[in-house]
This record gives sequence, structure tokens and C-alpha cells, in this order.
Amino acid sequence: MIRHAQPLASRCRIPNGGFVVGADIGASNLRVALATVDGSLIGKWHASTKETFSPEVVIGKICAGVDALLDQCSVRRECLRAIAVGAPGVTDANSGVVIATSYLRGWKHVPLRRSLEAALRIPAALENDVKLAAIGEHWRGAARGHSDFVFLAIGTGIAAGIFLHGQLVRGVDGVAGEVGYLMVPGTSEVPVKPGTPGPLEGVIGGEGIRQQWQHLLGNKRSPSKDLHATEIFDLARQGNRNARNVLRCSARTLAYAVYNLSIVLNPSLFVLGGGVGRSRILLAETKSILKQYSEPTKPKLVVSTLGEDAQLVGSIRLALDRAGVLTARQS
Amino acid sequence: MIRHAQPLASRCRIPNGGFVVGADIGASNLRVALATVDGSLIGKWHASTKETFSPEVVIGKICAGVDALLDQCSVRRECLRAIAVGAPGVTDANSGVVIATSYLRGWKHVPLRRSLEAALRIPAALENDVKLAAIGEHWRGAARGHSDFVFLAIGTGIAAGIFLHGQLVRGVDGVAGEVGYLMVPGTSEVPVKPGTPGPLEGVIGGEGIRQQWQHLLGNKRSPSKDLHATEIFDLARQGNRNARNVLRCSARTLAYAVYNLSIVLNPSLFVLGGGVGRSRILLAETKSILKQYSEPTKPKLVVSTLGEDAQLVGSIRLALDRAGVLTARQS
Repeated sequence: MIRHAQPLASRCRIPNGGFVVGADIGASNLRVALATVDGSLIGKWHASTKETFSPEVVIGKICAGVDALLDQCSVRRECLRAIAVGAPGVTDANSGVVIATSYLRGWKHVPLRRSLEAALRIPAALENDVKLAAIGEHWRGAARGHSDFVFLAIGTGIAAGIFLHGQLVRGVDGVAGEVGYLMVPGTSEVPVKPGTPGPLEGVIGGEGIRQQWQHLLGNKRSPSKDLHATEIFDLARQGNRNARNVLRCSARTLAYAVYNLSIVLNPSLFVLGGGVGRSRILLAETKSILKQYSEPTKPKLVVSTLGEDAQLVGSIRLALDRAGVLTARQS
Repeated sequence: MIRHAQPLASRCRIPNGGFVVGADIGASNLRVALATVDGSLIGKWHASTKETFSPEVVIGKICAGVDALLDQCSVRRECLRAIAVGAPGVTDANSGVVIATSYLRGWKHVPLRRSLEAALRIPAALENDVKLAAIGEHWRGAARGHSDFVFLAIGTGIAAGIFLHGQLVRGVDGVAGEVGYLMVPGTSEVPVKPGTPGPLEGVIGGEGIRQQWQHLLGNKRSPSKDLHATEIFDLARQGNRNARNVLRCSARTLAYAVYNLSIVLNPSLFVLGGGVGRSRILLAETKSILKQYSEPTKPKLVVSTLGEDAQLVGSIRLALDRAGVLTARQS
């Protein structure tokens, strides 16, 4: 938390002044942030969502986070202008409903925006978390100035936030960018059952990478058998042969996915995010493979500059849009 | 050619009256059409381009086609308002330049729009031929009323014209939609050399399908060895086992490509066009495979309603845009 010498509450007395709240509901963490209307983050708060699955409890926690932040930052409640919240899975940003998610024990048709507006009595907005991260990177991160780019989040699951002509692509059912389902050479061809990982996730999602690793170790008893994807990549950097094989296979599969996306969309930039996607050694290996796949276009890859704050920064931006307080300079 | 009882030339005297020309430069055929400003085709003309590769000769042929149509339809030259032309390969619609194409003996950086304007002394527009076909299907074909759809042309090569938010997607280098390069399970993983077919084309482009067929026939001498893709599909309909295998493999590969595109873009419709893509048996087989791949979205496939006229209809629409004569009702 950053403390300000100037009494912050006084800001809501000036025209277009006040504060907005951004929040990100993750599978294991709820994060809430408070920002001024010029987009500066002035406080962050978080809580575990591991045992918290009902929408009512999550909304209660968001309200508790807002209270804590108002208190910490000496901001009066009436100075709040809007809140925007990110949720995993398929969301309908227009109606403010979480349509379906395989996280949060499978929320279905949860009218989150309406519930937040009722609870906090300020305008609210809802967005898919990966799309929010793309909004964040576009506003203040690696994709500033790019009207056509792809934010590719690789964590437990894989999804993309796609900007074209400066707008998010949502698709007719809101599932545009669910690239965890992409099929490339080497991925499964078996049709996916609801609630199970897609073909691409099956190979290079966090769990897919662990499974590649465990498959290579075979029946060996090894203390390293339960390593996470990023720890396996660390071993690869140290020269471990099996880990290097996992890294190479993962990078090749990722390169094919990026290549396919660049063939369809031909964006000016790919931003890699998420716990696995931000791995520097994965980036280097993927770029090295993609050098050979330069026909008809050479995709440009970078790692997210906002890191794990991307969703939160995006939610602040969306809250500012919802409040209608953005100036031309900020946008 | 459709003849009108009313003297057509008189139409250019009325406000917003006149005529436009659309043309499509194919690898083997040049087609030119004349339309009224309400978009009704009143005449068509065509010529072979098989031995015609220099831009100057092609422009000369377009001018000859325009002359022939003006004469046939009794329209005076001063009644022409604009022309729009489609060309294969990567085009820059903004600058009116054919950047590169593997057809027409590899045109590179040909300023076609400027040359046409100089030759015909009317405003001209240039567009990639598959994107033109998408414009045609959107305006008067299978994709009417769809703001997010994919027109997928499968002939010798494969490419897509993608509409999102009611606009064509071009990408930063103009190669968005060059889906002949898509990599799906079963396609080649070898990097593509310039001027050679992409991985998807290698399997389900016209030549790729022939190669599947010839591979199955092995060393057998057979009069059917030189069949075209659509003839092989005809044999499949008649129950030929090898042909059915080619059809199944092609449909599976096409289904994977459509699935990937639907994951990325989640459009409301896929329109299949091109000589191979319009095959009804290929459509039926592909739909039957896609039924199993319904998670997280069910792509909807139809065959082009404009058929081989799609490009020409799109070029008429583009010429009307260039002339600035479209009414709200028409657009």
C-alpha cells in the first residue's frame, strides 16, 4: 500500500475526482485494488478464495476488501465512482453475467454485476480475467500503442485476450480466445468433454507440463516428481536433460499455437502472461523455434510487463471506463 | 448477359446514377462485370489469363473487357463511376498495391490501382480475391446479416476472408486469414519455404487432395490417377473405398481447421467457398466430424450461395463503395 501525504478523501470534491475499485477473482486468490481517477493505484488487498465458492461469499469478500481499502487509504465511501471485476471462464460483459467457469466450483449464470451494484451501490462492470489482463497490457503494459495484439495467458489453463482494430474480440458465444482448445501437431485429437482441459492446455498448461515431466521420469521415485512447470523450467536452465526435453516440447507446441494465431490474425504483437507464460527460458526457446516458421509472417513475442498485476490494472481501466471519467490523455 | 428494355446509358443522367465495374483476376481466368449503381449485374465478360502474366497485359485485358461490356450493354464510358478489382495473394487495399502473389508468375509490388486509374480515368479499388468473396457473401450471399463470420475458400490454395465487428480483418502485414498455413494434427511440421503450399493446403488444397489419392493408389496404373479433388469426391459418393478414405481424411483435417478458427474467433458462421470447398459431400462429412467437437462452441457451416460469382459480387460492392453511391438500404 502506498500512503499519500495529501488527504485522499478531498479528491472526490473536485470535478471528475474520486476513486475506483478493481478486483480479480482468481481460483485461489481474490485481489482488490483502489485507484484514483487518474489511474494511480493507491492500495491493494487480497484474500484467499480456496474455500470460498458461492457467489454471495465472494461478493461479501469483495465488499470487505473495499471497506479495508477505504479505511487504509482514508477515502470516504461516497467518493467511490465505480468497480470492475474480473472472473475466470466465459463471461458476458454486456449483461454482467458469469456464464460458465470450470473454476470456483463451476459457477453458472451468476449475475455478478447486478449483485455488486446492489451490494456497493456504485456502477459495476464484469469481464473475463484474461481479457482484463489484455486490457491492462494495452493500457499500461507491453501492448501500449498496439491496436491488433494477442495477450496469451498460460497458467493452469490457457486463454487469449485478442484485440483487433483496438477492440476486444468476444465472439458470438463469448468464447473467442479460448485457445486452450487449439489443436496443433502433437496435441490430442480426442473431442474434449465439458470441464476438462483442451488439447493445447493438455500439453502446455501448468498441469500438462507436469504430466510431460512425470511421463519422462516414468516409474522412478524422485523427489522432483511433484515439481511445478516453472520449477521444471528452472531445472532445464540448469542443464537437466529430462527438463530440457520438456522445455523443448512445450516451446515447440507453444510456437505452433502462436504461428496458427499469427496466420489467422496477423497481429503486431504477442504478449505472454500467466505464471507459466512469463517464463523467460520458455520465451527464448519458443522464439528460437519460431525463427524457422517465418513464412508468411514473423510473429513478435514479448513477456508481459505488468506480470501478475495485469488483471488488476485492466480492472482499474475498466472501472474508469464504467465511471466515464477517463480523459483523452489517459486512454 | 442480361439485357434491359430501358436504355441503360440514360441512368447516368439521374443523380447518383451510372454504372460500376467489378473484376476478378484469377490464375487462369479474368472476369469482368458491369453493374448499375443499385448493384444489379447487367453484363459479364471473361478472358483467359493462362498465358498472361505481366501487369500491363492484364490491365489491357481489363480495359478490353470494360469496352466490350460498355458496347454490349449500350452504356456510355462517361457513365462509369468506379472499378474494383480482386487479385490473388497479399494485397494492400489502402495503397492499392499487390504486395506478393504466388500466382501470375509471382507479381511483387504491383501498383495496380494507380495503373487502373490511369488507364480508365475512373476511381479504382484493389482487394485480395478471397476477401472480396467474403465481402460478396456478406453483401448478397450466405453471410448476410452476420457481422462476425469466416469465408473459407478451398481451391488450389486455401485462404479465409474474416469479418469481425462488421469489418474485414487484414492484420499488420496484410496476411491475416492466410489459413493455408495452419498447422493441425496430421499436417506437416516442416517450415514452409516461400512460394510453396502451407501445411493445411498440403493436405486439403486441390493438389493436396490429389496427392492423398495418388498415394493411396500407390504404384497401380489407373486411368483415375489424374482425377481432380472434386472428381475424387464424386467417386467417394459412389462408394469407392480409396476415395472415401481421401474424403474422410480431408474432412477431418478441415474440421480441425474450422474448430481452431472457431476457438480463436467464435464467429456466428463459416461459409465454405472455392471449387473444392463448395463440395456438398465434403460439407456433410466435415459437419458430421464437427458434431463431436462441440466444446466450447459449435461452429455453424454452410456452403457459399454465390458460388463462383462471390468475388465478382464483392468487387461490385467494393466499386460501389469506391464510387460512394451506396444507399443505406443497399449496404
